[in-house]
Amino acid sequence: MEKNYPPNFTYQDFAQDFTAEFYDPAAWADLFAKSGANIFDFRYVVLTSKHHEGYALWPSKYSYSWNANDVGPHRDLLGDLAEAVKAKGLHFGLYHSLLEWFHPLYEEDKANNWETSAFVDTKIIPEMKELVNTYQPEILWSDGNWESTDTYWKSTEFIAWLYNESPMKEVILVNDRWGSNTQCTHGVLIPHKWENAMTVDKSSWGYRRNAKSSDILTTHELIVTLTETISCGGNILINVGPTKEGTIIPIFQQRLLDLGKWLSINGEAIYESNPWTVQNDTLTPGVWYTTATASVYAVVLNWPENNVLSLGAANSLFANADTQVTLLGNDEQLSWQINEDQVAINFLDKATVASEWAWVLKITTPSL
Amino acid sequence: MEKNYPPNFTYQDFAQDFTAEFYDPAAWADLFAKSGANIFDFRYVVLTSKHHEGYALWPSKYSYSWNANDVGPHRDLLGDLAEAVKAKGLHFGLYHSLLEWFHPLYEEDKANNWETSAFVDTKIIPEMKELVNTYQPEILWSDGNWESTDTYWKSTEFIAWLYNESPMKEVILVNDRWGSNTQCTHGVLIPHKWENAMTVDKSSWGYRRNAKSSDILTTHELIVTLTETISCGGNILINVGPTKEGTIIPIFQQRLLDLGKWLSINGEAIYESNPWTVQNDTLTPGVWYTTATASVYAVVLNWPENNVLSLGAANSLFANADTQVTLLGNDEQLSWQINEDQVAINFLDKATVASEWAWVLKITTPSL
Amino acid sequence: MEKNYPPNFTYQDFAQDFTAEFYDPAAWADLFAKSGANIFDFRYVVLTSKHHEGYALWPSKYSYSWNANDVGPHRDLLGDLAEAVKAKGLHFGLYHSLLEWFHPLYEEDKANNWETSAFVDTKIIPEMKELVNTYQPEILWSDGNWESTDTYWKSTEFIAWLYNESPMKEVILVNDRWGSNTQCTHGVLIPHKWENAMTVDKSSWGYRRNAKSSDILTTHELIVTLTETISCGGNILINVGPTKEGTIIPIFQQRLLDLGKWLSINGEAIYESNPWTVQNDTLTPGVWYTTATASVYAVVLNWPENNVLSLGAANSLFANADTQVTLLGNDEQLSWQINEDQVAINFLDKATVASEWAWVLKITTPSL
Amino acid sequence: MEKNYPPNFTYQDFAQDFTAEFYDPAAWADLFAKSGANIFDFRYVVLTSKHHEGYALWPSKYSYSWNANDVGPHRDLLGDLAEAVKAKGLHFGLYHSLLEWFHPLYEEDKANNWETSAFVDTKIIPEMKELVNTYQPEILWSDGNWESTDTYWKSTEFIAWLYNESPMKEVILVNDRWGSNTQCTHGVLIPHKWENAMTVDKSSWGYRRNAKSSDILTTHELIVTLTETISCGGNILINVGPTKEGTIIPIFQQRLLDLGKWLSINGEAIYESNPWTVQNDTLTPGVWYTTATASVYAVVLNWPENNVLSLGAANSLFANADTQVTLLGNDEQLSWQINEDQVAINFLDKATVASEWAWVLKITTPSL
Repeated sequence: MEKNYPPNFTYQDFAQDFTAEFYDPAAWADLFAKSGANIFDFRYVVLTSKHHEGYALWPSKYSYSWNANDVGPHRDLLGDLAEAVKAKGLHFGLYHSLLEWFHPLYEEDKANNWETSAFVDTKIIPEMKELVNTYQPEILWSDGNWESTDTYWKSTEFIAWLYNESPMKEVILVNDRWGSNTQCTHGVLIPHKWENAMTVDKSSWGYRRNAKSSDILTTHELIVTLTETISCGGNILINVGPTKEGTIIPIFQQRLLDLGKWLSINGEAIYESNPWTVQNDTLTPGVWYTTATASVYAVVLNWPENNVLSLGAANSLFANADTQVTLLGNDEQLSWQINEDQVAINFLDKATVASEWAWVLKITTPSL
Repeated sequence: MEKNYPPNFTYQDFAQDFTAEFYDPAAWADLFAKSGANIFDFRYVVLTSKHHEGYALWPSKYSYSWNANDVGPHRDLLGDLAEAVKAKGLHFGLYHSLLEWFHPLYEEDKANNWETSAFVDTKIIPEMKELVNTYQPEILWSDGNWESTDTYWKSTEFIAWLYNESPMKEVILVNDRWGSNTQCTHGVLIPHKWENAMTVDKSSWGYRRNAKSSDILTTHELIVTLTETISCGGNILINVGPTKEGTIIPIFQQRLLDLGKWLSINGEAIYESNPWTVQNDTLTPGVWYTTATASVYAVVLNWPENNVLSLGAANSLFANADTQVTLLGNDEQLSWQINEDQVAINFLDKATVASEWAWVLKITTPSL
Repeated sequence: MEKNYPPNFTYQDFAQDFTAEFYDPAAWADLFAKSGANIFDFRYVVLTSKHHEGYALWPSKYSYSWNANDVGPHRDLLGDLAEAVKAKGLHFGLYHSLLEWFHPLYEEDKANNWETSAFVDTKIIPEMKELVNTYQPEILWSDGNWESTDTYWKSTEFIAWLYNESPMKEVILVNDRWGSNTQCTHGVLIPHKWENAMTVDKSSWGYRRNAKSSDILTTHELIVTLTETISCGGNILINVGPTKEGTIIPIFQQRLLDLGKWLSINGEAIYESNPWTVQNDTLTPGVWYTTATASVYAVVLNWPENNVLSLGAANSLFANADTQVTLLGNDEQLSWQINEDQVAINFLDKATVASEWAWVLKITTPSL
Repeated sequence: MEKNYPPNFTYQDFAQDFTAEFYDPAAWADLFAKSGANIFDFRYVVLTSKHHEGYALWPSKYSYSWNANDVGPHRDLLGDLAEAVKAKGLHFGLYHSLLEWFHPLYEEDKANNWETSAFVDTKIIPEMKELVNTYQPEILWSDGNWESTDTYWKSTEFIAWLYNESPMKEVILVNDRWGSNTQCTHGVLIPHKWENAMTVDKSSWGYRRNAKSSDILTTHELIVTLTETISCGGNILINVGPTKEGTIIPIFQQRLLDLGKWLSINGEAIYESNPWTVQNDTLTPGVWYTTATASVYAVVLNWPENNVLSLGAANSLFANADTQVTLLGNDEQLSWQINEDQVAINFLDKATVASEWAWVLKITTPSL
């Protein structure tokens, strides 16, 4: 701050530079659709409606002069994206921070040891209801819960409203961050699947103008994280921070498009799958399992040496000689041999395989 | 707007230019003290704490991101002036607008035909209490009342708090703008004296960068307005709009200092006076009367032709031959003659009189 | 700088704030006309075409990117004023600084002990010719000459061009600042009349946003300076610094209009006058003499006590009993008495005189 | 412009946003070094010292107020990069535009049908000499020559100075853009190698804040262009446009690093090579030849079907049975068969080859 800004520069002073002049919600929605290969129904786009600094991306009645319509872009960034995302047939969700770093009413409640609740009563609850009523998200991803309990946040009442009265009561999903005491308790608020929220820039959730290419996850690293998460029964939330001009920078676009390309071949191992009995192989590192109706999938993150993959945890699948193995994206059956403690699977010539970055074995056996 | 600003420029975008970099509350207080000659106890300085655009000049908990501490000057402009004014021994008062042109909660209540009150409950009442508790003004000059009634504004409850519970309950004065139905009814809320709020720039309450000298009241015009107001039993509130740099421009300074110079000679006709039985003279235009213990004052706005002033409404004062007349600022007794319908008073040589711009006759008669 | 600006702020960074958005050359010309009473032919308006920081107020070919058309107002400020001033029948002149504080070619020539002349050859001479050819000023008021001699500045060649070849050769006037060696030598370059350049803000030639009313010369002080200058045979140049928005602030307007009002009564003692044999009176301070055909003028800066003025230096004028004295603006003859060493002149009743601030006696005697 | 900027916005007004706050010349130099694998001596970094808008990236004496030191970054961007690049052992070159879109002296010369030369005499020639004397570039890549001839630009005299007198006379290289008549004449000014200047953003030489990933050349496309250029005897100049904050965005970094990675394996086919007798293969598209001492290289842009590459233009190399073929990055000899009109080369298992994106056959035969 001292180096780059005039004396007394405050957080609010940033708003004037947040122009979003190139913001193109339809292009964003198109990119997000392509990042998931556009063929399944298990993907959602989650926008940060308000982060810890409290700046609302929609024209909130409860955040006058500190929202995207009043200062900065002069536009309902959230509403425009909600519309574009829904038009693409994607699910729309919202991230929302309960706490606000600089809000004086929050500071007041905090100074009062959470015995007052002006911030929750006049700001947080009304603004969350406004969000749900106006934009009808299917996900409400709460955050910033950690400084006080769900009693202070009035989370039980709010969630009761959400599931009993709100226009989204039939479909909405929430996460578990609703109070310093709710997280990780896996109580009633927790969806069955856990969520791995990650960011493509290793160092930041927001866009950094001085990010280096080495700070950005490679496509392979992205697929590694995705695979590990799915194998362990989690959902994944992939974050890209947009610029103040409202764009998603080319390297983020490329990563998302690469991921979409990979999923267009290998998505069936990811989207409708469940964790298998074993998560990752006991013999060869970098092999992760998932399962779906009648098949087990092994995601192979590194091409096997000599084109032969040895699996230590899959013998049960190969007890039946009719077990069939293919690489997703290629039709050819792979030959295999079993012995006491492992199965050896002969890969195709690498020059002929459809997938890049990682490869998925689809194992189908009558015993499943 | 179209000519001078980029597309989509909004009211909030002005804040970045409001720097108040030369704001010197002590210099303001000194100027205000001098504008009243610094010798009487009936003067107060009233700052606009918040005008119709809603921008708070103090770091209000209820106007996060739309106050002088968060955006613009990054300083508690109100608090600093309150301190400086009190240090000068002047009384401190606050102007406060109930309505806000752009506040979404106000717009909502309005759209609901004033049947909801989120704006009053979560914004206006808390912020007025914050003002009174924090800055302890002796005057609360309410404005912006006209769109809804005192029922909507909860004025009765608030004023009850002000006079029964607030830290200022013993001393605070309010005006009559507390609802569309309260103004001009001269009900319980009205102080005995009415208030003439005027502005030194004829065309604007705020500072205009392109004001011309012909737009500014002359010192003589200021004294005319002051005199007429006092003679009719009113108080006067003289407005100067400060610049975005936090200064009062030289021509406003000069007017206030000229007024102070005039009051240092003629103030006794103004400060502790009451209206007389007649307001202005029936014979000579531009002569206005006030009265105080044992004297009647005639403020003469134009020097009389041939140095002789004829009064048509003052015969009763001159029935007694011992009546004495002086010009304030000069010791000499003025000679006078009475006939049936008028009194003629012989002025001094103009080159010898102390006062400038207007002259005050002090008429003392045993019969008073 | 450190307090009010970001790190590394430079002089050029100011340009973005210089908008001149309210610049109205016709209004300026009107004001200047009125400041001189609009009745004589001896007044000129001199604009600072370029000051020491080098910023050109016209779109100079020799100051690309550092002129009012390229950065800031995006307008030919000089050309627009030249037109407006000439349309009012006023004479137009230009101030021009030879040196430039920050110009790298100037710094280079200086570092070379003035043995190189890239700055003069490629910048100064071409730009002065451009000014004269394009805007045809009747005055070229040179400044910034003091660091090097007229040899470096090539002043002799330039002035030769000005008087022999330029389109203004018949009429143009210059001052004496054409080299560190030319000033005060009263050589060939000096016009007969000397020039008293003064500024209405006592502390600055430029506009100061934080100027106080006490920093501004009063109308009386302006008339004092004017009178003393004229009595001593000088010309006067009265400076007002415009704002970055392109306006002249109200207090400067008022001073100029007051001066115009005074000159409309007393101008004949100023415009076509010459110094008299005596400059100021030997007996009464604050009385200054000028003369014109058949009359001597005595400018009386303070109203005389008891309305009688005693002059110690004017006896010769009153030797003839037919000598007549009037106050400019009033028709009445003033009575007078002479004795050995002084003349006593009886003023009119002050309430009846036309002039304000200062008074001019016109003394007409057959002996002149 | 109309959509995104205020009225009257000019090119100069952009400068205030050009901050270069994250400019890190050492990081740039490191990136450029890595983009060329850091092992050969035939690479140079060429910075645009001044483009057609005339803004100088160094503190030029001849571009006062329109250079990176006076407005924008307030820093000698050029000098800092020159130092960093030389410290990395890279060669440093400069691009320089002769014409300037908006310079008034250029416009004047143009309006005079190039019969005057104020722009060339006082601006262009001095600034090019300043560049060469101060920063000692090894390349001067001239541009913007097309509107007038080398006579107007005084190119012959300048180049004579460059090669006879300048501090770089022994080493400096220039291109052929020195007048509308010089380009493509391949006269004396032309180096033997021609130059293919290309840009990684397909649509722009400058950075575009709204660039999409599909606008950016892929690594494969970059290698294709590089290969074709080298095979045809050209040099290549790869452009990336930096941001106004002074950074090179991650996707450009990644492309340059990918290229560096490819060159670290395959560079010997590129850097010290010459065109071979045949440029690209007559039988298989996407195969380009170069040659160096004792070897011919065939750059194979697409992996051959069935891992066998058929060449139609290389039979002469395989006449001798001792001819040896390898893939750069792998040690194994490739087996081959020749018949009347083609050679078939058996590639390695793709899973084992070192190179990515494209592959280089090194063909060594005793007959060469």
